[in-house]
Amino acid sequence: MDVLIRPAREADVPEIVRLLIDDPLGAQRESVDDLAPYRAAFARIAADPNQLLVVMERDGEVIGTQQITFIPGLSFQEAVRAQIEAVRIRADLRRGGLGTRLIEWAIAEARRRDCYLVQLSSNNVRLDAHKFYTRLGFAASHTGFKLKLHE
Amino acid sequence: MDVLIRPAREADVPEIVRLLIDDPLGAQRESVDDLAPYRAAFARIAADPNQLLVVMERDGEVIGTQQITFIPGLSFQEAVRAQIEAVRIRADLRRGGLGTRLIEWAIAEARRRDCYLVQLSSNNVRLDAHKFYTRLGFAASHTGFKLKLHE
Repeated sequence: MDVLIRPAREADVPEIVRLLIDDPLGAQRESVDDLAPYRAAFARIAADPNQLLVVMERDGEVIGTQQITFIPGLSFQEAVRAQIEAVRIRADLRRGGLGTRLIEWAIAEARRRDCYLVQLSSNNVRLDAHKFYTRLGFAASHTGFKLKLHE
Repeated sequence: MDVLIRPAREADVPEIVRLLIDDPLGAQRESVDDLAPYRAAFARIAADPNQLLVVMERDGEVIGTQQITFIPGLSFQEAVRAQIEAVRIRADLRRGGLGTRLIEWAIAEARRRDCYLVQLSSNNVRLDAHKFYTRLGFAASHTGFKLKLHE
């Protein structure tokens, strides 16, 4: 499939939000009634050089997204870790290898920026995602802890 | 115990590195022979408003550290997540409640910045840490995946 992976633009926001909603977990928590908060969030992400919001495009249509955060740290002597969040592929296009291409793009970008590690956490209800990341070479070595501050 | 928790300064770098080394996992990967890379990393962290490197101090001595990263995102409508990394308490002072005070400081700072979530991942060999985070109210809901790009 002929796809393009590139940094997101402000005009992509509605389509990215649609992808976030189109997900068993996302459906409970996203709403497109008002896009203003999403546009504000986009501006905040775009202003931070350590954030990279990405879309996958096919024939001018956004069909996938992910966000990469570059975290500088003191551990490992000045090492930067790349963290992937909010990975989505449009529902009708899943299981066709597009997710692999998206993550491989993130890994290549992390190498280009000389990161020593790529990390992500995945909800334990997403069993297919866990198999997917293991196949891509990730080690399920950690437990991801979350503390919600408000509903 | 009378302690102060505050943002780290450049002068704290040697003591923070000492804390990173003083750890079963850290001992294998840190070296204080040359502090220059750590100072460079500190400069990079200090230049990023979404990074907060923190120290715990007692009688002018650094006895603990953690790094908090604020990650803006499109999910949950403009929500920012706070991520904790590189938590350390000096070995001889562990199990006295200082770790709890450090993490509670991070949670309070996350609330102050209106984050919706605090997250972290902990290596599965750190069983005591897992109990510690669960006691603090964190849910062990996720699996943390890591892909090392070089040794």
